[in-house]
Amino acid sequence: MPNIKKLLIANRGEISLRIMRTAKEMGIQTVAVYSEADRLSPHVKFADEAVCLGPAASSESYLLGDKIIEVCKELNVDAIHPGYGFLSENAGFAKKVTDSGLIFVGPSPESIEVMGSKLAAKQAVGNYNIPLVPGTEEAISDIPAAKKIAAQIGYPILIKASAGGGGKGMRIVENEAEFESQMDRAISEAISAFGDGAVFIEKFITSPRHIEIQVLGDQQGNIVYLFERECSIQRRHQKVIEEAPSAVVTPEMREAMGKAAVGVAKACNYYGAGTVEFIVDDALNFYFLEMNTRLQVEHPVTEMITGKDLVKEQILIAEGNPLSFSQEDLSIHGHAIEVRVYAEDPKNNFLPDIGTLETYQRPQGPGVRVDDGFEEGMKIPIYYDPMISKLITHASTREAAIERMTRAIEEYQITGIQTTLGFCKFALNHEAFVSGNFDTKFVERYFNPESLDPTFSKEEEELLAALAVEFFDKSKKEFVQKPEQEKAATVSAWRNRLD
Amino acid sequence: MPNIKKLLIANRGEISLRIMRTAKEMGIQTVAVYSEADRLSPHVKFADEAVCLGPAASSESYLLGDKIIEVCKELNVDAIHPGYGFLSENAGFAKKVTDSGLIFVGPSPESIEVMGSKLAAKQAVGNYNIPLVPGTEEAISDIPAAKKIAAQIGYPILIKASAGGGGKGMRIVENEAEFESQMDRAISEAISAFGDGAVFIEKFITSPRHIEIQVLGDQQGNIVYLFERECSIQRRHQKVIEEAPSAVVTPEMREAMGKAAVGVAKACNYYGAGTVEFIVDDALNFYFLEMNTRLQVEHPVTEMITGKDLVKEQILIAEGNPLSFSQEDLSIHGHAIEVRVYAEDPKNNFLPDIGTLETYQRPQGPGVRVDDGFEEGMKIPIYYDPMISKLITHASTREAAIERMTRAIEEYQITGIQTTLGFCKFALNHEAFVSGNFDTKFVERYFNPESLDPTFSKEEEELLAALAVEFFDKSKKEFVQKPEQEKAATVSAWRNRLD
Repeated sequence: MPNIKKLLIANRGEISLRIMRTAKEMGIQTVAVYSEADRLSPHVKFADEAVCLGPAASSESYLLGDKIIEVCKELNVDAIHPGYGFLSENAGFAKKVTDSGLIFVGPSPESIEVMGSKLAAKQAVGNYNIPLVPGTEEAISDIPAAKKIAAQIGYPILIKASAGGGGKGMRIVENEAEFESQMDRAISEAISAFGDGAVFIEKFITSPRHIEIQVLGDQQGNIVYLFERECSIQRRHQKVIEEAPSAVVTPEMREAMGKAAVGVAKACNYYGAGTVEFIVDDALNFYFLEMNTRLQVEHPVTEMITGKDLVKEQILIAEGNPLSFSQEDLSIHGHAIEVRVYAEDPKNNFLPDIGTLETYQRPQGPGVRVDDGFEEGMKIPIYYDPMISKLITHASTREAAIERMTRAIEEYQITGIQTTLGFCKFALNHEAFVSGNFDTKFVERYFNPESLDPTFSKEEEELLAALAVEFFDKSKKEFVQKPEQEKAATVSAWRNRLD
Repeated sequence: MPNIKKLLIANRGEISLRIMRTAKEMGIQTVAVYSEADRLSPHVKFADEAVCLGPAASSESYLLGDKIIEVCKELNVDAIHPGYGFLSENAGFAKKVTDSGLIFVGPSPESIEVMGSKLAAKQAVGNYNIPLVPGTEEAISDIPAAKKIAAQIGYPILIKASAGGGGKGMRIVENEAEFESQMDRAISEAISAFGDGAVFIEKFITSPRHIEIQVLGDQQGNIVYLFERECSIQRRHQKVIEEAPSAVVTPEMREAMGKAAVGVAKACNYYGAGTVEFIVDDALNFYFLEMNTRLQVEHPVTEMITGKDLVKEQILIAEGNPLSFSQEDLSIHGHAIEVRVYAEDPKNNFLPDIGTLETYQRPQGPGVRVDDGFEEGMKIPIYYDPMISKLITHASTREAAIERMTRAIEEYQITGIQTTLGFCKFALNHEAFVSGNFDTKFVERYFNPESLDPTFSKEEEELLAALAVEFFDKSKKEFVQKPEQEKAATVSAWRNRLD
């Protein structure tokens, strides 16, 4: 059995550091790679060796698969861990790695390839009794036949162009009366947009939740599931809060989803850590969406509730070790929540807010974990995903995990840039979240940016302090009553002075 | 049932912060107290309100019970959490607190009183079938009678003066042949030292381990045990590494010790969190030593393996809530280790090494918790226990917890003062620790201060760097061969230049 002695992490930031920490615990030497923009990054300092790949742009650094393999040869590296993003789901890269005699810490290139295509994935799972969103398997253009199928599926249904994308030729039909007119429009839109009038019909999930199952499989064919992660709180169609277990998944549903996920993994001869994503409707029916053939950003919540180190398991599997535990050995301990701390402005539609971490003090204490790749004073580079850190809390119950997260968010000190922390605190304490009764439309349904605590620029804070001196009588502990005109003049004078 | 809305923490540093974090999670307002030496301490900043008690000396600040109660009255505080040390096991203070109409987050004054006296404690547990170190219950001076008892107990035995203390009149007897002469000497030493020749005889435990059981009891009389903590690694008779579970405790022994601990707690009508300490011999017989009627320094390892927040449980119990779980609901998840990071020099007999935390960067990542009360740049005050922090790791197995701790120790960056981190890394990786085959004499048996990695003062480092320039040929990558005399002259010249 090969023994990994030196591991190169083909990634950056928090996930690179997180993988290296486990490698170090396993006595494995680590090699970091970095772009010129990341040369001062903690992941570079933490590694035993570090190699600069090139300029900041990913295409000139983190995506240079051939160069990374060359580095491995030069430094006698045994294995590559791709992390998430970048080259992690690139079947061609995985193949080159193994063809070079290196170990790829991940599944086989074939598994990546199959699950990388929605069509191939659906075909692969065909024999495994995996629930899929009900709909036509092939394109259709015959309206009466389509109407019959729609009635079988049940309304609301979604009509989408076979050749489509980007929402063009896509129609939601609420009931049978609307069907013909909507199908007409969908077909004509599809013809004008793609020159092809064929459409698919599938069930439209009104109130969808995103729930995924973590699986681990070894190269001997054993596959287990490590329960679910609830990932429905999203902004801009990307996850921002994840938790395990889900507030709505019952033990029976968990077992059914787990078995379905294991079936998906078996369908593509999967080994390593993988995630099977499901869409769940408001009646708690679940349907297979896709499989992510890598470590997920949100893997820590699963680590917290199962006590397993997923990176360690990945490395052991890559070495060829059989799983050291079976499904019966796994159980859920307590509840874990992760919030993603992005350098984004929730008041400005969550657009990235790049800058310098002027203050950066992490929360601490029982049940709190921070996975990050930055230090105080560092800049968040504009070239990559603007995630600063992942803040994870673990407690005995969901309620206690929410309370702990709220405390940890309040303890987290970040100045210099806007972050998603305030939004996450809002979301976690919203009655929809607390009750567990929410879906992927949480943000559009409930989030009003005005409801966040006000935050001020340094200039605004100085102005406020100055005005407080003018208008607040400390000895009497009351506001000074001045005529409105005088007030306006004072404010204006202070503003000028501060400018 | 009283509802604690505002809690004063009558303590400082890490334990004050740790208690406040839980209070905050429970929505309870916090009041910190501090001495003049601690005015910049994180526990002061974290609290909602903070009150200076007086000068640095504990007797003029943290031990001023009456003043603390006055502060509570002024600030409408409902309850006092005493932490550990200071007033935490002072029955008189606990009584004053409750007499003032405040809630004491701890056991009743009566429980503290009984367990505060070794004799009273032994009498109290008399009816509960608790194993005690075998020996005479009353003082004895009749040599033949004593010899008979010694034979029943089994050698080696310990003879100690009834009026004694400080090792005077104390004799270890290895076998029956030595008994008479040693007892003669013990009696005459006791007469000359205390004017009283009466002695006790008890079993001498050659290779003692210190293992303790965490208990939690509510005011309704329900008591559960939260398994054991192994605390045998000590220096200067004080714990420095603790772990849960113990490497030598079997499920049967755990249950027997747990039941004994619950018996001890019942014997003094205990409620709150408490710890029952046992001495364990090399045949794994365990004997009750004493009960600590407060939260222990090492409570986090129990929190990690049980998933319970002990401070939260303390507060809920103090409010009068019954325990929300039973013995059957408790189980052990994985393995946790705590190392105490003291400002001490292991190379200088673990004497305190006070100074400034010039660098202070905490380790992070999965399964790592740091409980501390300092920030980079702060001074460790000379007035209190020199503990900087507690570093705790949690993993699925003991081996993985040791590997994780080793990684975390290496990641911890502290400069400006000597710490116990290097010693702890040595101890954790010593074969005696790894095998689990160790006792309280670990340090004297195995620790050679010379074996630690060398550490240099700033001046020494500069000298070494300068000498490296003189004596090391970088291009040839070899040491320059110079005559001994010339070497000595160069070293001396550099030393002068640096002075």
